[in-house]
Amino acid sequence: MSVEKSIEKLQELDEKLSALNYAQVLISWDAQTLAPKKSVKGRATALEGLSTYYYDTLISEEMKSVLNELEGEIEKLSEIDAAKVRVLKTEYDKLAKVPAKEYSAYNALITESSSAWEAANADNNFDTFAPYLEKVIEYNKKYIEYRDKGGHPYNTLLDDYEKDLTVETVDNFFNDLRKVLISLVKEIQKKPQVKLDFKGQKFEKTKQEEFSKFIMERLGFRMDCGVLSQSVHPFTNILSRDDVRITTHYYEDDFKSALLSTIHETGHAIFEQNIDPAYGLSIIATGTSMGIHESQSRLFENNFGRSYPFWQHYYDKLKGTFPEQLNQVQLDTFYKGINYVEASLIRTEADEVTYPLHVMVRYEIEKMIFENKVKVKELPELWREKYKEYLGICADKDSEGVLQDVHWSEGLFGYFPSYALGSAYSAQFENAMSKTINVQEKLQNGDFKDIVHWLNENIHRFGRTKTPNQILLDATGELFNPKYYIEYLTNKFTDMYK
Amino acid sequence: MSVEKSIEKLQELDEKLSALNYAQVLISWDAQTLAPKKSVKGRATALEGLSTYYYDTLISEEMKSVLNELEGEIEKLSEIDAAKVRVLKTEYDKLAKVPAKEYSAYNALITESSSAWEAANADNNFDTFAPYLEKVIEYNKKYIEYRDKGGHPYNTLLDDYEKDLTVETVDNFFNDLRKVLISLVKEIQKKPQVKLDFKGQKFEKTKQEEFSKFIMERLGFRMDCGVLSQSVHPFTNILSRDDVRITTHYYEDDFKSALLSTIHETGHAIFEQNIDPAYGLSIIATGTSMGIHESQSRLFENNFGRSYPFWQHYYDKLKGTFPEQLNQVQLDTFYKGINYVEASLIRTEADEVTYPLHVMVRYEIEKMIFENKVKVKELPELWREKYKEYLGICADKDSEGVLQDVHWSEGLFGYFPSYALGSAYSAQFENAMSKTINVQEKLQNGDFKDIVHWLNENIHRFGRTKTPNQILLDATGELFNPKYYIEYLTNKFTDMYK
Repeated sequence: MSVEKSIEKLQELDEKLSALNYAQVLISWDAQTLAPKKSVKGRATALEGLSTYYYDTLISEEMKSVLNELEGEIEKLSEIDAAKVRVLKTEYDKLAKVPAKEYSAYNALITESSSAWEAANADNNFDTFAPYLEKVIEYNKKYIEYRDKGGHPYNTLLDDYEKDLTVETVDNFFNDLRKVLISLVKEIQKKPQVKLDFKGQKFEKTKQEEFSKFIMERLGFRMDCGVLSQSVHPFTNILSRDDVRITTHYYEDDFKSALLSTIHETGHAIFEQNIDPAYGLSIIATGTSMGIHESQSRLFENNFGRSYPFWQHYYDKLKGTFPEQLNQVQLDTFYKGINYVEASLIRTEADEVTYPLHVMVRYEIEKMIFENKVKVKELPELWREKYKEYLGICADKDSEGVLQDVHWSEGLFGYFPSYALGSAYSAQFENAMSKTINVQEKLQNGDFKDIVHWLNENIHRFGRTKTPNQILLDATGELFNPKYYIEYLTNKFTDMYK
Repeated sequence: MSVEKSIEKLQELDEKLSALNYAQVLISWDAQTLAPKKSVKGRATALEGLSTYYYDTLISEEMKSVLNELEGEIEKLSEIDAAKVRVLKTEYDKLAKVPAKEYSAYNALITESSSAWEAANADNNFDTFAPYLEKVIEYNKKYIEYRDKGGHPYNTLLDDYEKDLTVETVDNFFNDLRKVLISLVKEIQKKPQVKLDFKGQKFEKTKQEEFSKFIMERLGFRMDCGVLSQSVHPFTNILSRDDVRITTHYYEDDFKSALLSTIHETGHAIFEQNIDPAYGLSIIATGTSMGIHESQSRLFENNFGRSYPFWQHYYDKLKGTFPEQLNQVQLDTFYKGINYVEASLIRTEADEVTYPLHVMVRYEIEKMIFENKVKVKELPELWREKYKEYLGICADKDSEGVLQDVHWSEGLFGYFPSYALGSAYSAQFENAMSKTINVQEKLQNGDFKDIVHWLNENIHRFGRTKTPNQILLDATGELFNPKYYIEYLTNKFTDMYK
């Protein structure tokens, strides 16, 4: 085949895969937001059929030969086509190196394992989940062998979510961070913290939604290219750059959860809404990695949405939405209240300071699993020990301990570190941005134009055409450097109680 | 291949096609109910990719050989498998007989033609649509040649929506019906009709929705296997028997439109919710034809939802929902009001009596098109003539005339007759049902259990395993017989003004 012909074929294969991905995302969105209770069976058959097409297209002789041919000519390709080749090759290798039968057995296992986790979590019974978890881990160990990236076995898993990330980098990051966090938590707890308590009050859903939409738009979410809906757990789904959907969950006894989760998801969404339109519907037309994605959501949620200047601008508007509940609450009180720090058991409910400690617990345990240093049946006890060590508390119930996260049941090992990495990246990006933009002043004016423009230009638009390291280097002038995050946290929480 | 192996392959191919169909239906549902304004582009690419897979799977060597093999062994197959072979063969032939390039060019044409119609309709300018319509017609004439069913060329098109339906049958039906309708309209117009007028009143959407859901459930819609949403035009979408979705459109100045369209779509939905679960997600797991489908929606909307006994039972509840607006309106007035008869210009807004006249106009014109008796440029004038002839009125504007329906722009020739056929079938079914069930008494008691059970047993559960003629014959003891419909209309409207 000529190079031109191969590029054409590449484009065709990419669009076909993207069409399937579009369908799968929409089905998943629908399942979590609207689909009727008893609709599971038809959906399962549909998803299975679509994933067969996906597998057959990705692991086809056609794909193999197109990728081989174009890899040899990569210098001659446009940036876009070169990126497509690189990303498709990665995806191809992930699957091609695993025997087809094992892969399909694993998919079946994940379905079972997820249900088993759900039941185990509801019944607080780790033993019923353990046999599935064992099999999931076993597969992942084999998977590491098939795809060995070199070095620590866990590197192979890390690499799936954050290209080129290694145990060495994460170890260094967490070692530095841990010391600072533990002393920071101690310092903060000596201070008179403020806990916002709205017991007995009601925050109407419709008003929360109205304010959420107002803030989304102000932050730069293009409302005619996206949707805000409701679901049990908030998430972002991407159909195309012009159709990015987020959800939140409204609690009528407190508005904070929905508000901050909306701001978080808006960070993810604005990333996707600003991918270069030239990519079309493509495997490269999405955020480059979990860590870089999370950096955007954390930047919006924490660095902006839990900052003082942000609320200097928007607090009056919020008060106007909930006058009865907030008229007696001063801005300073509100600010401290949404930054309340407390060692707690559940990761997803943790504050900005203790959150990374939850991630470290998981990271330590996952590393041990893939170093063959812990058995599945020992995990509940190990979890308790690590929580004692990192947070000074531990859960009586496994449902609030080792069973709290869905990730392992879905085989997502190596994923957790990207949450902490995201926060650290966000500080590094904010620091870089501050060289040309007075971020605090912009927040105080509620003006996100220049901020979002900087993010678009330096991060968003590239999608997967750059690796995380390339993004960091080009946007901030250096590779990942945790010092900005450590400084950010220290300054923020020291200033708060000055 | 052994028969067992071929059956397995058939099952696999059927499920793969059904998975794609599921995705296409969901994307279409989403586009009409929720998707953001600017999301068109990504969706178009996704739909194109999915339809490529669909085409390639249906017109594959694999499908061809499986169908050939199993057609030879059809006697040995289970009823389900035999039906799958029959239906897939029909679908296969429809596409396989058309050269692939022509088919894909036609699909591109339809996309353009639909947009052209939309613009032409909005601008009331037939000339801008005419060149597209010419091409669509041209393709359909070629299509008839490729697939010639014998007899009148229009038979081939009719057969696509109503298997085995011929011009002869429709001509006979419409000749009988026309005479009766025209004299019936004259009779009714002599009587003191009641026009419900709620000018200046407001029917809150939330209350309309609440009542719609109440009625759906009472009619037998399984609420945990479906959804009621809103869209510009009401429709039913089928993802699986356990996920059937309908929409309605609420007008706050009048509740009748949303209420009766909900009842109509509920008729479609209950059909689909009661397909035999043994069929799984399959090409045979849906209503057998447009006409049989429409018979269920019309039965619910007209024979039940516009009947006196139905409202004897439910009118108090409706009054309770809108007490201010309805307390002064007597049941008899209400009943006559929802059965108001008037010659009008727009098919979708027509009453039960004049509706078939709108269909006849379209049928006559379509027949002439495929008999090469009329040119595209002559259609606006022909439309006006036929409306004058059939309804005694005609539109000044083509947007309310020849441009009012989307169908031709989408190439749906041969489709319109199924609307009128549906009404006629419904009367035939009601008559058959009445032999074992006192339908009027059931309606009066608001009790749909036995009625829906009869429909399930005689119509719904079979999906596409029976042809329309088989359904009619088995359920009513005879093939299509328009006399029941003619009697039904005559009796209903004569009794109303006795």
